[in-house]
Amino acid sequence: MRVTFLGTSGAVPTTERNPSALMVNREGERLLFDAAEGTQRQMMRFGTGFAVSHLFVTHLHGDHVLGIPGLVQTWDFNGRDDPLMIHTPTGTRREIRNLVEATGARPSYPVHINEVEPDEVAYAGEDYEVRTFETDHRTTSVGYALVEEDRKGRFNREKAEALGVPVGPLFQELHAGNPVELEDGTVVEPEQVVGKPRPGRRFVYTGDTRPSPAVIEAATDADLLIHDATFDDERAGRARETGHSTGTEAGEVAKKAGVKRLALTHISSRYAGNAGLIHSDAVAAFDGDVFVPHDGQTVDVPYPDD
Amino acid sequence: MRVTFLGTSGAVPTTERNPSALMVNREGERLLFDAAEGTQRQMMRFGTGFAVSHLFVTHLHGDHVLGIPGLVQTWDFNGRDDPLMIHTPTGTRREIRNLVEATGARPSYPVHINEVEPDEVAYAGEDYEVRTFETDHRTTSVGYALVEEDRKGRFNREKAEALGVPVGPLFQELHAGNPVELEDGTVVEPEQVVGKPRPGRRFVYTGDTRPSPAVIEAATDADLLIHDATFDDERAGRARETGHSTGTEAGEVAKKAGVKRLALTHISSRYAGNAGLIHSDAVAAFDGDVFVPHDGQTVDVPYPDD
Repeated sequence: MRVTFLGTSGAVPTTERNPSALMVNREGERLLFDAAEGTQRQMMRFGTGFAVSHLFVTHLHGDHVLGIPGLVQTWDFNGRDDPLMIHTPTGTRREIRNLVEATGARPSYPVHINEVEPDEVAYAGEDYEVRTFETDHRTTSVGYALVEEDRKGRFNREKAEALGVPVGPLFQELHAGNPVELEDGTVVEPEQVVGKPRPGRRFVYTGDTRPSPAVIEAATDADLLIHDATFDDERAGRARETGHSTGTEAGEVAKKAGVKRLALTHISSRYAGNAGLIHSDAVAAFDGDVFVPHDGQTVDVPYPDD
Repeated sequence: MRVTFLGTSGAVPTTERNPSALMVNREGERLLFDAAEGTQRQMMRFGTGFAVSHLFVTHLHGDHVLGIPGLVQTWDFNGRDDPLMIHTPTGTRREIRNLVEATGARPSYPVHINEVEPDEVAYAGEDYEVRTFETDHRTTSVGYALVEEDRKGRFNREKAEALGVPVGPLFQELHAGNPVELEDGTVVEPEQVVGKPRPGRRFVYTGDTRPSPAVIEAATDADLLIHDATFDDERAGRARETGHSTGTEAGEVAKKAGVKRLALTHISSRYAGNAGLIHSDAVAAFDGDVFVPHDGQTVDVPYPDD
């Protein structure tokens, strides 16, 4: 699972940072989270590929959605046939439809809009789900958590051989959870050679938000948490007024949630060339791995036990 | 008068080229022509300044207008008070208004929309006009010509002195077109010491168009003509079908109109890294100065007689 930061600025772009968008490539499936103006060109520039199946919108502010019309149009020019699913908070269907048809034309491929409430499954993939959670941003908004199913436990090959299981298809049977009978009639149960199921990965993106218990709950044990960190501590009041977080607040969420890695994003344009203050605030609050991604940065999300 | 090419691609952006937008800075007044997605960030990147008074829209296709919502929002964030005037073809007021208010918020500064027909004055500046002309692009569309008033003729200082005019304020009087009386009672007429009025500059932007007599007429004697040149000659049929021009066609227009300098723009993404074919087609048709601007390129438009 690879995350590409397509835009890491706050509401106003800078020469260094485009506004919000994130691409997640999970085993070839491309999921886009938010799509600010300029997102399509960021995708080209950073080589993420264009075949996006799902777009997850956190809220309707311009710096999260104004790239939708251009993306939809470019897909149309490129002859896209595959349907596009846009997930968006309840009550925003009409505005999203207006963005999809902003230039007066309806795309020639199907665009479905799925309104979501907090705490539901927006999309159930084959072995993972994208779930919504409540965020706190002075408008209808949600965050998204991509949660993988548990993986099979590790197969203990040495033990299997010691029990007399011949190398070959019986190994797969056992790993798949089925008992096998050996030639001498002995039955080997999968529990004898397969470890406990191992947790999948958990990727959490808040969009714009104040720190909140709902965010902490959603972020619990996340392998990667991408959290609003628009301001540094000196502007904590401004963060409260505008429904955003500081570096410290993002760090505190990460600490309480026990996340492994914290990415700070939605950096206000006043820190254009230097987000060091925000970073050091977060580092002081959270002793895990913290970074301020730059546009185009990619991060691989490893399995928690790897 | 300085022109900055903010976007030179066709409908689909490439890593090298953003879609259409042009900034004209005329003695500090900033006029924007079209505003594709990403235009605000191109303005930042290329340092054009942000204080735009007028936006001239050629037509409503997405690759010419989808930057409007973000620009309008960023001006709002920046506390803009000055009104913005958007000129746009007749019948597109509602769509432009939808783009201005795309995120559901009305900007806190006034945004006026002026619908224009071909062959009218869209905007009369202090000593220039922006006029519209008819273009041919399978939708309601116009091109724009910025036409400066004639400048005063040259003042012949030597002749004035020979006629006995003392150096000083009488020189200004004569240059302003008023006769003056010398101490000995002689009257000197301005025609005796001031040359013929000299033409101002003429800058012409077609937007997307087929070559046409109306374009040739509008471009006559232009100091800079910026013409659609989406395709090379091998795709002349495609240019006809899609309402665009080839390099050759743009060159022929420039030749017939007797322009001084021709810039080829709206380059199809298929020529992403290499617009050489389009350039050489135009060079073969027109023996004036021809170039394919890159994004961020600036061009000073000199006076015709300088």
